[in-house]
Amino acid sequence: MAFDKKDVKKKSDHISDWYNDIVLKAELADYGPVRGTMVIRPYGYAIWETVQHIFDGMIKSAGVENAYFPMFIPESFLKKEKEHVEGFSPELAVVTHAGGEKLAEPLVVRPTSETIMYSMFAKWVKSWRDLPLLLNQWCNIVRWEKRTYLFLRTTEFLWQEGHTAHASHEEAISFALKAHEWYRQIFVDYFAMPVLLGKKSKTEQFAGAATTYTVESLMPDGKALQAATSHDLGQNFSKVFGIQFQDKEKKLDYAWQTSWGLSTRALGGLFLTHGDDAGLILPPKVAPIQVVVVPILSSKIPAKKDQSAYVDRMYQALVSQQVRVKLDDTDDSPGKKFNKWEMKGVPIRIEIGVKETDDETVTLVFRDTGEKKTMPWKEAIMQIDDELKAMQLRLLEKQKAFLKEHTHDVSSYEEFKKIMETTKGLLKAFWCEDAGCEKEIKNETKATTRCLPMDTKEEKGVCIHCGKPATHRWIFGQSY
Amino acid sequence: MAFDKKDVKKKSDHISDWYNDIVLKAELADYGPVRGTMVIRPYGYAIWETVQHIFDGMIKSAGVENAYFPMFIPESFLKKEKEHVEGFSPELAVVTHAGGEKLAEPLVVRPTSETIMYSMFAKWVKSWRDLPLLLNQWCNIVRWEKRTYLFLRTTEFLWQEGHTAHASHEEAISFALKAHEWYRQIFVDYFAMPVLLGKKSKTEQFAGAATTYTVESLMPDGKALQAATSHDLGQNFSKVFGIQFQDKEKKLDYAWQTSWGLSTRALGGLFLTHGDDAGLILPPKVAPIQVVVVPILSSKIPAKKDQSAYVDRMYQALVSQQVRVKLDDTDDSPGKKFNKWEMKGVPIRIEIGVKETDDETVTLVFRDTGEKKTMPWKEAIMQIDDELKAMQLRLLEKQKAFLKEHTHDVSSYEEFKKIMETTKGLLKAFWCEDAGCEKEIKNETKATTRCLPMDTKEEKGVCIHCGKPATHRWIFGQSY
Repeated sequence: MAFDKKDVKKKSDHISDWYNDIVLKAELADYGPVRGTMVIRPYGYAIWETVQHIFDGMIKSAGVENAYFPMFIPESFLKKEKEHVEGFSPELAVVTHAGGEKLAEPLVVRPTSETIMYSMFAKWVKSWRDLPLLLNQWCNIVRWEKRTYLFLRTTEFLWQEGHTAHASHEEAISFALKAHEWYRQIFVDYFAMPVLLGKKSKTEQFAGAATTYTVESLMPDGKALQAATSHDLGQNFSKVFGIQFQDKEKKLDYAWQTSWGLSTRALGGLFLTHGDDAGLILPPKVAPIQVVVVPILSSKIPAKKDQSAYVDRMYQALVSQQVRVKLDDTDDSPGKKFNKWEMKGVPIRIEIGVKETDDETVTLVFRDTGEKKTMPWKEAIMQIDDELKAMQLRLLEKQKAFLKEHTHDVSSYEEFKKIMETTKGLLKAFWCEDAGCEKEIKNETKATTRCLPMDTKEEKGVCIHCGKPATHRWIFGQSY
Repeated sequence: MAFDKKDVKKKSDHISDWYNDIVLKAELADYGPVRGTMVIRPYGYAIWETVQHIFDGMIKSAGVENAYFPMFIPESFLKKEKEHVEGFSPELAVVTHAGGEKLAEPLVVRPTSETIMYSMFAKWVKSWRDLPLLLNQWCNIVRWEKRTYLFLRTTEFLWQEGHTAHASHEEAISFALKAHEWYRQIFVDYFAMPVLLGKKSKTEQFAGAATTYTVESLMPDGKALQAATSHDLGQNFSKVFGIQFQDKEKKLDYAWQTSWGLSTRALGGLFLTHGDDAGLILPPKVAPIQVVVVPILSSKIPAKKDQSAYVDRMYQALVSQQVRVKLDDTDDSPGKKFNKWEMKGVPIRIEIGVKETDDETVTLVFRDTGEKKTMPWKEAIMQIDDELKAMQLRLLEKQKAFLKEHTHDVSSYEEFKKIMETTKGLLKAFWCEDAGCEKEIKNETKATTRCLPMDTKEEKGVCIHCGKPATHRWIFGQSY
């Protein structure tokens, strides 16, 4: 497929058209044949594999083990936890027939696996010796969304879901916060996305949780994205599924639980965040291709030295430096190649033309700034790792500045409404914590509570909307 | 959970009871709440992760990329290839309702992904430049089996499915054979399972294939297990899905395709093959725990030296040797620990008692032979890798001898029937290659054609059953 800049929608004009366009043109994904489904293509999937690799290392070092539970959940299981079934009912896909027969009990395709996992936990957990039980699974999930959006909202998506059971509430909370911290690291350190850490309001929390901890990020259009969540489930599920253990004093107690998930939705946030009018920009740490080497052949002025041997020497040197490097030696024109790899967001392009060959230099072009640097090839090999690290930091710093610029302390509801109608962004405002008041704000401004920041302090104030006394400033925003 | 030898069924008495028993007791898997489903527990899943790691390396080095396609397939897609839909129809699970509404077209949960993948291939492949297209996905699969069996036959299982498209039939066949060779390596080199490589008969081949290549193994009860298959699909699917490309001469042609899969079913074969009355025996290369260190404390005769420091030194030395080692310092009795780790099939147990501590020795106990060796601890550290390799080979040699002993050249149908009624095993016999004759043999002896071995030679003979002329000796056997 040819990449032509003029075909690509501008990010600055209409972000959602631009986004769909780059996801398709960079070959991250394609629309599946069934409404709301998506095919994750190799270039997009490679990023997910990197996330899996990083996150799997984090959880395993904390003693979490991977397992696999069945995808089909008896409908009756979902109904056991009242809030849980209410939260998920509208989004369920249901298998009614199998093996040529109508099933006695319909099976729900997992929208999340608390119920099926905890029915097994009840069988396995008997004593404090069986705790903590620390499991995770990588799997597909189905939630039948009405309005879908590539990566960000699809009827089927991939994720990891961690599920743990503990002997005390303190231990469970501390584990939920550990997952929260892992997610922060994924976004900040790998995706170069600054995030807000906080707790969800009762309305916005996970259906069945005691407390939901969230990692919230801000997209370029001023809307918030819930990037990943971890839940302190209290004893809500252990009580309905009967996960009981005998403690050291031989007393029976219900287990304290957590669950936490990170999905391919996060990749949508990554793509939206860094791209520009020329396409995707991938942070070096997660880019499947970090460096593309593009030889520029000229039929008019042949190089004095053997250009292809020189190009190959450079390519091999990068390979042995552990750089994820691609050599584009196709017969496309240099212009076409530049457009293609810019669209795909490759952090650094190395151009090697006749002049570079004769001088034994190379030209580095940086995807985020467009800046060019020509240097001796040996120097480039030595500096490439630092250049990638510098770009990783540059991307994060740029987003930090953006987040700061678009986070506002507001004290009047007029100002609140005005910002939500214009630039959007995140608003910090006193709120009375009443669900009815929260709903009115949402109806009037499309803004929901995103979170109560973890580092919040108690203050005296009045609710931005109803004027009643309030003790904390919450974060509001319109969301994806 | 306590492991008590007397609770465990004997492999020699009734293999299927023994098998279910060890799968549950070794905590490889558990029954799921829905009939025919299974939970893969961490100990079993770790083996699958090892398989994924090994196989992913093999396919990536051949240029295959991972991707992810939707699980739900429109019913109409499956119907496009006549043999394909006939083969899979009785086993389908069907989603009829989603998002609270009845779907206009029912969705089938993938029993394999040819149809959904190839509908996308048709969109992506236009020119010879787009070929070969080499994709793989790791995912869950649903086939609604009537009689289920842990790992070996479950309604949902995990697998990898590779799907490729090529510009010529020769190239496609050679890729299908490449996959065939990868599977041979997995079974022989990692699972210590000798296998037969061959082609399937028309009756037994994949529904929609031109030729199916199979890797067949023999289980301890004399039944055959189809361990993994790769298919030359010819142009069967490309013609119905319209995967057309312009070749170098600008002529339009349909792509030539392959598909190939390895599933968690293979783990069932692994567990069945090597275990004994005391439980599982895992080949060192795929064992999640290769060595377990068991300190034997005695309250009567305390060691002169610091026993726990000595145990820890040994443990740490093994860790730094890259051995997958576990220290069992629980307060269970040594006997209980021995039983537990024997049940779990850990290749080598290292016992460290008072005498070992005082002498600075350790005692190695080998899971397959029960043999014990006491040696200075430094020597054990140096030899551990060789000992693991030696066990890996020993397990393979033992199975090779078993396979040889239970493979028979037969020339009379009486003999054929007698063996199938008694010891079973694999039979090599002339067959006329008529499907009707094949069916009669199956009805009379429960034996099916397993494969035509790859190294077969044309000969003159008469069919074992009908007496008509035959040119090749096929492998027959009863199968899982």
